[in-house]
Amino acid sequence: MTPPNLAMNAVSTVRDLRAQVAEWKAEGLRVALVPTMGALHEGHLALVQQVMDVADRVVVSIFVNPAQFAAGEDFDSYPRTLEDDAAKLASTGPHLIYAPTARDMYPDGFVTEVRLGGPAEGLESEARPHFFHGVALVVSKLFNQVRPDVAVFGEKDYQQLMVIRRLVIDLDLDVEILAGETAREADGLARSSRNAYLNAEDRRRAGALNVILKDFGADLRSGMPASEAEASAVARARDAFDGVDYVTVRHAETLAKLGDGPVSDPARVLAAVKVGTTRLIDNIAV
Amino acid sequence: MTPPNLAMNAVSTVRDLRAQVAEWKAEGLRVALVPTMGALHEGHLALVQQVMDVADRVVVSIFVNPAQFAAGEDFDSYPRTLEDDAAKLASTGPHLIYAPTARDMYPDGFVTEVRLGGPAEGLESEARPHFFHGVALVVSKLFNQVRPDVAVFGEKDYQQLMVIRRLVIDLDLDVEILAGETAREADGLARSSRNAYLNAEDRRRAGALNVILKDFGADLRSGMPASEAEASAVARARDAFDGVDYVTVRHAETLAKLGDGPVSDPARVLAAVKVGTTRLIDNIAV
Repeated sequence: MTPPNLAMNAVSTVRDLRAQVAEWKAEGLRVALVPTMGALHEGHLALVQQVMDVADRVVVSIFVNPAQFAAGEDFDSYPRTLEDDAAKLASTGPHLIYAPTARDMYPDGFVTEVRLGGPAEGLESEARPHFFHGVALVVSKLFNQVRPDVAVFGEKDYQQLMVIRRLVIDLDLDVEILAGETAREADGLARSSRNAYLNAEDRRRAGALNVILKDFGADLRSGMPASEAEASAVARARDAFDGVDYVTVRHAETLAKLGDGPVSDPARVLAAVKVGTTRLIDNIAV
Repeated sequence: MTPPNLAMNAVSTVRDLRAQVAEWKAEGLRVALVPTMGALHEGHLALVQQVMDVADRVVVSIFVNPAQFAAGEDFDSYPRTLEDDAAKLASTGPHLIYAPTARDMYPDGFVTEVRLGGPAEGLESEARPHFFHGVALVVSKLFNQVRPDVAVFGEKDYQQLMVIRRLVIDLDLDVEILAGETAREADGLARSSRNAYLNAEDRRRAGALNVILKDFGADLRSGMPASEAEASAVARARDAFDGVDYVTVRHAETLAKLGDGPVSDPARVLAAVKVGTTRLIDNIAV
């Protein structure tokens, strides 16, 4: 699965990757990593633009990581559009695509796991118990392969961002973590590669998710008890969508549950719902 | 628990450590790590000498890692001799002692685990199920803190060496792993900080362990079926010692069990026994 002849500089092996990064480091350049699963959209390109403010070169990794999908999830159908991705990135600067193969990432005899409790518990882990183990593993590997000075993770996957921040502290990974602002459509829907799964009617309905979260946040800021605000948001989500995994408020950093009363700690409202067969997530600051 | 005023350069924080290593790297020097739990003996000093052949500067980490001890093991009584250790190292060159505190290594909110299957299964893990999780975690952290070019692990802890080699492959840690030859006393007893626990009579008896392993290896090399050679070695160990955790032959790299017949793959004989209340381990190549 060598990448095809792409419009921009692309490598598929750690050896080639390290050679390019070492060259940049020798020139004193600051290197950023934007980890992606490909299917790049404007949200990803915005992350690349954002890290360009604090780095000189950007490695965009493109790897649909089997370790973070469970059986029955969309690993096989997840969009793979490497040539399109390369074309989109080519406009952003003299960067590097790193697109390793699954066989190189997880060779025969692979036996290592990286697991987190704390912020990795609950929320996404309820529906996807393997997910953060897979994320922590692949991010650990990517950080060790690239050794970036800085890496950016979108706030759209907020729990993932908190898990990565904790991973970086706990394993002493020498990487600055930037939070990438969520890119949104006109109706507030967070941009996501999975939005491509939505038909026109479901796409129209999906816009309600961000509205419900904004109202939930406003209720909390107005001093409404958390249990009451949450019950109202959950009820609205149940009406609007075909399934509700969670609509809840958590501590903004640890993602610990908060009390039932008015919220005083820094907090975040987060949701995961199903629209048709597509699972959407979103979150906003309180 | 800041280290006392030591006879050689010593740091206790990641910040000071990275500053010194960055200075060396900027001078183009090659940096080695010798991870230890302190209580340094000639075996450790031999490892420092050995890596000096392939590196310019050596960081000796001294950290009695709580994560690799279970309740009831000897974490509290493990010898801590930082000033003696520093004095011993001072003679070996312009190196650095890195002696972090447990609070800095495992701060509040720490939630990350690094776990391996494969070579980490069985043998030491039977008696010490937490052990390799703790080792993999602390070694991952030390590698990320120091970012050494090369690190050395004694062959005396052979299973640990194979676990580290696998960890380095699986997590793409950019560190060359050297195997340090086992330093031995005149009667063949492998040097170990835990030998200090032996009384004179137990010390005398302990020498039999290496003799039994050598004979076990010789039997295998002569073509004796593995099951027969192993049964003989186990019987002798049961006679000689106060407990036998294992005396066995394994694949030299994966530590997988071998068949009952004559050994053809590269193999290693390994043993763990109790002499009095002290647990001793040893191993040799077949």
